[in-house]
Amino acid sequence: MTVLFNNLPTKDQIACGINDRAIQFGDGLFETIKIQDQMPRLLSYHMSRLRRGAEAIGLSLPDYLHQDQLCADILRLMGTNNLTGNATAKLIVWRKPEYQKAYFGGDAQANTLLLVKGSPDLLPLKEHVSFSQEVVLHYWKLSRYKTISALPFVLAASERNQRGLDELILLNTKGYVTECVSSNIFWVKDDQLFTPSLQTGCVGGVMRSFLLDRCKEENIAYQEVEVLAKEILAANAVFTSNSQGLQAIQGIDSAFFPESQEILSGIKAALLK
Amino acid sequence: MTVLFNNLPTKDQIACGINDRAIQFGDGLFETIKIQDQMPRLLSYHMSRLRRGAEAIGLSLPDYLHQDQLCADILRLMGTNNLTGNATAKLIVWRKPEYQKAYFGGDAQANTLLLVKGSPDLLPLKEHVSFSQEVVLHYWKLSRYKTISALPFVLAASERNQRGLDELILLNTKGYVTECVSSNIFWVKDDQLFTPSLQTGCVGGVMRSFLLDRCKEENIAYQEVEVLAKEILAANAVFTSNSQGLQAIQGIDSAFFPESQEILSGIKAALLK
Repeated sequence: MTVLFNNLPTKDQIACGINDRAIQFGDGLFETIKIQDQMPRLLSYHMSRLRRGAEAIGLSLPDYLHQDQLCADILRLMGTNNLTGNATAKLIVWRKPEYQKAYFGGDAQANTLLLVKGSPDLLPLKEHVSFSQEVVLHYWKLSRYKTISALPFVLAASERNQRGLDELILLNTKGYVTECVSSNIFWVKDDQLFTPSLQTGCVGGVMRSFLLDRCKEENIAYQEVEVLAKEILAANAVFTSNSQGLQAIQGIDSAFFPESQEILSGIKAALLK
Repeated sequence: MTVLFNNLPTKDQIACGINDRAIQFGDGLFETIKIQDQMPRLLSYHMSRLRRGAEAIGLSLPDYLHQDQLCADILRLMGTNNLTGNATAKLIVWRKPEYQKAYFGGDAQANTLLLVKGSPDLLPLKEHVSFSQEVVLHYWKLSRYKTISALPFVLAASERNQRGLDELILLNTKGYVTECVSSNIFWVKDDQLFTPSLQTGCVGGVMRSFLLDRCKEENIAYQEVEVLAKEILAANAVFTSNSQGLQAIQGIDSAFFPESQEILSGIKAALLK
């Protein structure tokens, strides 16, 4: 497969310095971008989050990394790799080892790696969902960004699979609901839309941002909240969101949400039209 | 510089697959080993932590990664790279991308990278120390291990340097003292030795483990505690520990610890003889 490594086409492997800071410290960020109907989606949201994340970790993004160029590069890689259907692009940026004094890396330039691969459609429904017993999140300066220091989510994905679940909900150190393994979580209760606030330590997902922006445009009320797990179990409908789309949750432990799919259909009609 | 990548000598660069899980997710662990008088130190502690960490993240370590072989490999790299004085070895292990479904990586084999470089002696004293304003830690399944999902420590090192400090103390979400940027913290108050418990979310440092084991052998009482910052400010002496050694702390904000160096000398004499 052909990728773009530091803006140059490369096949299968990339040459990393022995002091590479992704390998040493997970010192970088990434974006996973949906490509539908030959078009990268929500690119302005991805670029905005990437820029703010880079500023937060003191990383200088290269000049070629802007929205129009990224769009063109993704479409070029689609062609080079003979991808014609729905696909996902992944953009990884990480600090070059200009300085190397233990953890400190200075305000360095970024390496960039852009990959595109085919992806199946999302399943409409997550049937069996529970709460993580192993992974606990917390709020801090970087929790809203997608960083490559992502072991909490690797462990969460492993726990989800070991327990035979379709999804896992992660709580923070206060017991508040934060997000799922690779998606944000929303719920509807008494006709109100809720999602955990960024202060819970959840990632500021691009689809989460897009949905909340669309709510504002459509004058649909929503609340960003810090609530315990029991609050979500009393919801009328629950669904997840990430850059790939929205998925209804049918059951969390013994709680059952028979209306999730229908209510989510209404939300999609109102917000994604 | 010559390194060992997956047990083979390699110079300057390593070839990583485009789905490399260190670059994508920081999905691995590392150990930083002190080499003094041509001998790697505390190797059994390093190997023990590495094995337990690998088990915690579901990573299979290769057969060649055992203590005797690691010792021989480190000494061989010292020779190949013409290193004669004190040095530091860094061993990084990370999950090979056998499976690749978003975050999930399965129980895969590990890539290994072993580097050795010269290192100066530690300064005996950290004069100006404060508490981090940006980095907050918390306890969870992996907090005791040294993982390459290390952005919190990268940010802490950056904050320390920006504030012109010699060291930074990190608190957890409850406000409890955890550790420093790349070392554990100890203090003495009323002739009692204290260090934060692993439940604060601090790394289980190899020197921390060694010191506590030595205390048990010498019947020296110590307490592993969860305490607020003000507790440490009332100490008689404060010092840090990591695999490189022990360093006295002379001042934290406006608190001054004139006895730190002398008390630490006594501790070194009792525990490191």
